[in-house]
Amino acid sequence: MPAFRTRRRVEFRDTDAAGIMHFSTFFLYMEQAEHEMLRSVGLTVMEQHAGSVLSWPRVSVNCDYRRPLRFEDEFEIEVMVARVGEKSLTYVFRFLHQGHEAATGRITAACCRFSHDGPPVAIPIPARIVELLHEFQDLAPPPELA
Amino acid sequence: MPAFRTRRRVEFRDTDAAGIMHFSTFFLYMEQAEHEMLRSVGLTVMEQHAGSVLSWPRVSVNCDYRRPLRFEDEFEIEVMVARVGEKSLTYVFRFLHQGHEAATGRITAACCRFSHDGPPVAIPIPARIVELLHEFQDLAPPPELA
Amino acid sequence: MPAFRTRRRVEFRDTDAAGIMHFSTFFLYMEQAEHEMLRSVGLTVMEQHAGSVLSWPRVSVNCDYRRPLRFEDEFEIEVMVARVGEKSLTYVFRFLHQGHEAATGRITAACCRFSHDGPPVAIPIPARIVELLHEFQDLAPPPELA
Amino acid sequence: MPAFRTRRRVEFRDTDAAGIMHFSTFFLYMEQAEHEMLRSVGLTVMEQHAGSVLSWPRVSVNCDYRRPLRFEDEFEIEVMVARVGEKSLTYVFRFLHQGHEAATGRITAACCRFSHDGPPVAIPIPARIVELLHEFQDLAPPPELA
Repeated sequence: MPAFRTRRRVEFRDTDAAGIMHFSTFFLYMEQAEHEMLRSVGLTVMEQHAGSVLSWPRVSVNCDYRRPLRFEDEFEIEVMVARVGEKSLTYVFRFLHQGHEAATGRITAACCRFSHDGPPVAIPIPARIVELLHEFQDLAPPPELA
Repeated sequence: MPAFRTRRRVEFRDTDAAGIMHFSTFFLYMEQAEHEMLRSVGLTVMEQHAGSVLSWPRVSVNCDYRRPLRFEDEFEIEVMVARVGEKSLTYVFRFLHQGHEAATGRITAACCRFSHDGPPVAIPIPARIVELLHEFQDLAPPPELA
Repeated sequence: MPAFRTRRRVEFRDTDAAGIMHFSTFFLYMEQAEHEMLRSVGLTVMEQHAGSVLSWPRVSVNCDYRRPLRFEDEFEIEVMVARVGEKSLTYVFRFLHQGHEAATGRITAACCRFSHDGPPVAIPIPARIVELLHEFQDLAPPPELA
Repeated sequence: MPAFRTRRRVEFRDTDAAGIMHFSTFFLYMEQAEHEMLRSVGLTVMEQHAGSVLSWPRVSVNCDYRRPLRFEDEFEIEVMVARVGEKSLTYVFRFLHQGHEAATGRITAACCRFSHDGPPVAIPIPARIVELLHEFQDLAPPPELA
């Protein structure tokens, strides 16, 4: 199984007045898991590249919720690289709590060069990055996430 | 056009080190717009109903990003009710900045009864709520959001 | 009375599992009110100044809480400039809900030049800014905030 | 040394357009460290107590900032119990980065009983809690935090 895995705990600020982890917070944890996966192979999500900053603005994201998470619940996050395009990557995520799937999500991010002025410009993903992500790549994600 | 419309401005805390509004923040503004739309017809997202609390946990959400928003940008949010199911609602959202679409999103939420213990239980949407939301209902949303 | 005043409403994401606005969120609203005050006199908190970015990192902040705020409560925020130093400003804030003081706070921020590398460097506050803030200046704040 | 210690890393969402960890985020990490300290002795910040929920709303908080933290910086948080009152506790916090103090903070929280309706009511801290926190208690905090 090629997934990267990490663990977190629902912090108090993650909850809302309904007593459960706020739906938007799942995206913060997806991003934390993505960045931790990148660090695990020596990458970082905002790096100097050929004299400018290379980063990964999001093109499209989604999340499906199955079970609520509550304050102090521990959960596992799985990340897989589901698609490597020329200028974008798609990650899929699974949130697991006590062996049950709490949520699944997906983030598609574009490889962009940021300058101090002007909008981000999409560029081909450097070959070095594609190579380093290879170990987390699953070209056959579950059909409902494809 | 049946959409509910409201305006916001990108606050400093909405931005991140890449200088743009963080992708997760769009969901916070979708939710604010949803709640403002509910208030405009006398509803609230957490209300007493038949002796317990009725609220709307999210089943599925997504967002597509087209243009970055920056600190102090003013933007408009449009909300439409795209689908009224027996026990769930789907809202679609558009973020507009200077006449251009910055992002589009969707939230499907289940009508649930919350008790002090036990998980939320989905219940049929009260007829009163369906009626009040009628004015924002567009049963023919743009195909890419359907 | 020299205070700048603005209004907000407790959003759902501002609350936590205890059902009240999270204590950290008061600082987000102090900052929003500060920025709105700056905009009201034509200033912005991150501006180009003599070829670099001038901004206001915080040196010291505090908040005292008197009454909890709950989801959808409307409240007023008052901002005053309590002290103008050579290189720093101190703002004081009051949160009012239904005529009662819900919280009071204070932010001291340093006037800094940000470069693309290296730490922020404190510089004397430009005279133009001191002048524009004059109308919100109260050199005799309540003793407990002094 | 009686301090409880834990480590965190600056996450991307913790940063803002100035490229540094937002000042409000230090309070989120103080709270995470407080809760982790409570868990380490078998306590939790929202617990059932004599038929209602006992929790700790904040009375007063502050933070002094000395050095900015940036994306992916690792830092240590120290927590000490600086004061045990009849109905409130005061924690002091130190943020350390590469051996340097980045920030110091303080939180005073009241021991309160929450009911489903009505405001929180301050109650004497249960003796069991006072005892369990004894090992983190430092009755001689640095003068500037006292």
